[in-house]
Amino acid sequence: MLLDHRRRAQEIVDHSTTETDTDGGLTEPFHGPHQGGIATPPQAHAQFVGLDLRENADRAMVAGLLKVWTQDAARLTAGTPALADTEPELAATPARLTVTVGLGPGVFSAADVADRQPSWLRPLPAFPIDRLDENACGQTDLLLQVCADDPVTVAHAVRVLTKNVRSLVTVRWSQRGFRNARRSHPDGTTMRNLMGQVDGTVNPAPATEEFDRLVWDDGSLHRWLAGGTSLVLRRIRMELDTWEEIDRPGRELTVGRTLDTGAPLTGKAEHDEPDFTATDRYGIPVIPPGSHIARAHHIHDGERFHRRAYNYDDPPQPGQTSNSGLIFASYQRDIDTQFLPVQQRLAEFDALNQWTTPIGSAVYALPPGTGPDGHLGDTLLDTT
Amino acid sequence: MLLDHRRRAQEIVDHSTTETDTDGGLTEPFHGPHQGGIATPPQAHAQFVGLDLRENADRAMVAGLLKVWTQDAARLTAGTPALADTEPELAATPARLTVTVGLGPGVFSAADVADRQPSWLRPLPAFPIDRLDENACGQTDLLLQVCADDPVTVAHAVRVLTKNVRSLVTVRWSQRGFRNARRSHPDGTTMRNLMGQVDGTVNPAPATEEFDRLVWDDGSLHRWLAGGTSLVLRRIRMELDTWEEIDRPGRELTVGRTLDTGAPLTGKAEHDEPDFTATDRYGIPVIPPGSHIARAHHIHDGERFHRRAYNYDDPPQPGQTSNSGLIFASYQRDIDTQFLPVQQRLAEFDALNQWTTPIGSAVYALPPGTGPDGHLGDTLLDTT
Ligand code: HEM
Ligand code: HEM
Repeated sequence: MLLDHRRRAQEIVDHSTTETDTDGGLTEPFHGPHQGGIATPPQAHAQFVGLDLRENADRAMVAGLLKVWTQDAARLTAGTPALADTEPELAATPARLTVTVGLGPGVFSAADVADRQPSWLRPLPAFPIDRLDENACGQTDLLLQVCADDPVTVAHAVRVLTKNVRSLVTVRWSQRGFRNARRSHPDGTTMRNLMGQVDGTVNPAPATEEFDRLVWDDGSLHRWLAGGTSLVLRRIRMELDTWEEIDRPGRELTVGRTLDTGAPLTGKAEHDEPDFTATDRYGIPVIPPGSHIARAHHIHDGERFHRRAYNYDDPPQPGQTSNSGLIFASYQRDIDTQFLPVQQRLAEFDALNQWTTPIGSAVYALPPGTGPDGHLGDTLLDTT
Repeated sequence: MLLDHRRRAQEIVDHSTTETDTDGGLTEPFHGPHQGGIATPPQAHAQFVGLDLRENADRAMVAGLLKVWTQDAARLTAGTPALADTEPELAATPARLTVTVGLGPGVFSAADVADRQPSWLRPLPAFPIDRLDENACGQTDLLLQVCADDPVTVAHAVRVLTKNVRSLVTVRWSQRGFRNARRSHPDGTTMRNLMGQVDGTVNPAPATEEFDRLVWDDGSLHRWLAGGTSLVLRRIRMELDTWEEIDRPGRELTVGRTLDTGAPLTGKAEHDEPDFTATDRYGIPVIPPGSHIARAHHIHDGERFHRRAYNYDDPPQPGQTSNSGLIFASYQRDIDTQFLPVQQRLAEFDALNQWTTPIGSAVYALPPGTGPDGHLGDTLLDTT
């Protein structure tokens, strides 16, 4: 009996020692000038949920919804169960959970604040390359972006956040994305997409002057948006069958970077500056002018944005072998000036287009973060 | 310039120091008496792929298929690209990858070895609780079970394994499952399912005499199967909306265990032995006789099996909030004597049935493991 007690005590000690060694308890701050999930080092798992307001939604209902989400998100991201959490144990593993809320055009009309709608907040123009499916990733009134390093945490948070508000909204689509698992590579390693490419190299680094300037709104046009930003979400299918038919050099010329290290074709290491002017001894550009990076590269500094994409890999359609692609997510102050020119250029010509097909497109305003006394969207709705 | 070189060298040193600290390079052995993915400590991610042989498949084709899978799996699990791997970089992170191959009844007829088909290898009888969808998880000729701690690794391995054999097979369904991320809890913590329950407590421990006896075939009935086993795969939807309407005590009585620690209602800690005879002071059993564990508990030792389930959480159907459940996977020498009596008992009555719906069911023979000179299934097909 005594022995049993002693063994039990020892087990408790062993257990707590190991526990401190785990990542499940790590948290990302919820309160602050900006929402999480934008500058946050990307977590391994993401779920993007597109929701529509029910008919007759008004400002009070929108405010009520955003209050519930704020309250639940503040708790869940801290590893505390939501108020009406029926599975509180699943909340105990925050695993760097972030919850990011986006507002589509529909919110501005429903809440009768159309005068506060940023001019860039409207569906992107239709591009000839698009094969959009409204139910896969169409424009919705609202977006929830939920990211964490543990997939169970993501599933639980999405469940809580969507079920507590079902009298106010309906879910139109829900997209699960993933990157490499936490700790499967050294921290800070750029992820690989399912084409095998190093994806995310050229990106403003969070917490730099440059990032702040490109991503966070300063409130000069819309006071309520100061500290907020915008999201362009594009669901892009990869045509892996035909992609894999071309040889490695062909695939590297398509992007303008090597597949092994992700270095530009004019360099040796991933972060070497690409030299778009370099030519070989026959005068042919080393990085083809039609390659993805040559076309996507900013022509001036104002054409830059922050990419934070996730892979998707869903069950294949009958007769197919895969159904994979990229949940492309880009954050910028102004979609029209920063993102659109690049997207237009790529839609016009990009060697990669032959093997990629946009099947979804949506844009959102991401309101600023909030303090413990406010709620997401309060500056928009004047409902602090 | 010199400074630059020195900084570069330092970066390389820093990089390799960190690299040894990551989990991406961890491997599980492929060669051996048993296939991996059964006794292997469950990885965070799993994909179960059901495939059908094309018309006119014969023994040579089946053998060819199993040879390709063996060769690819041996390489991928070691972190080496498959032979025709078009994304070799994605193979460099094995993250404890295992590939497990299952054979459905169709293989035995196609390969003309029906006399070697175990008597338990046939679809389970239809149960009144079933609402089966053939395209979600119906009986197929073949199964690939691919598990790893990194979701990118799983996606890549499934892609390689399915595309290299498409002249021989078609994919009927593909199911992604997950558990808690590696390192988000101390090693060996029992997972939680999306009902919030601790799931997998009562389970024979791998590498014990008991596990070997219950799981690994000894070849006494079918020589070729020595070292192999069987898999019952059931896709079971959770009716979370109604489940979450009952209070915590009600939910705990349904299973017979507490939600916080997973202890039996008669005990204090997860691994305490449940006392199915204990009654309260009114003479009412503490663990209800109709609870899930009371009904599922083995009546004699031969009714036990090894459970290794995964959560699923797919996009909800229009109008719904979630689409979650369990990919229930159970491994045993003999489905008829070990698994079926328990499943029959549960189908007859189990308090949990009110909130769970089986929507898929399939069974497979899992051939033994193989050495470097053989291939999976060679003992069945006499094709070493
Ligand atoms: C499935 C679709 C796509 C794939 C597979 C893809 C892949 C890549 C890869 C491998 C790189 C090089 C490494 C890096 O800097 O990240 C890259 C760069 C880039 N991509 Fe994409 N991309 C896709 C879609 C897009 C879209 C839709 C946009 C914007 C409209 C975009 C904008 C950029 C930009 C701005 C760069 C950096 C260019 C530079 O300055 O070097 N990409 N992409
Ligand atoms: C969605 C469906 C299911 C859920 C949520 C579920 C959940 C659970 C939970 C929470 C436990 C207690 C902890 C443990 O020992 O793992 C348990 C035990 C068990 N379950 Fe299930 N289960 C499901 C389906 C099944 C099925 C289909 C079978 C077999 C036909 C099964 C067989 C067992 C067995 C044998 C035990 C251990 C009983 C004992 O001896 O204590 N379960 N299950």
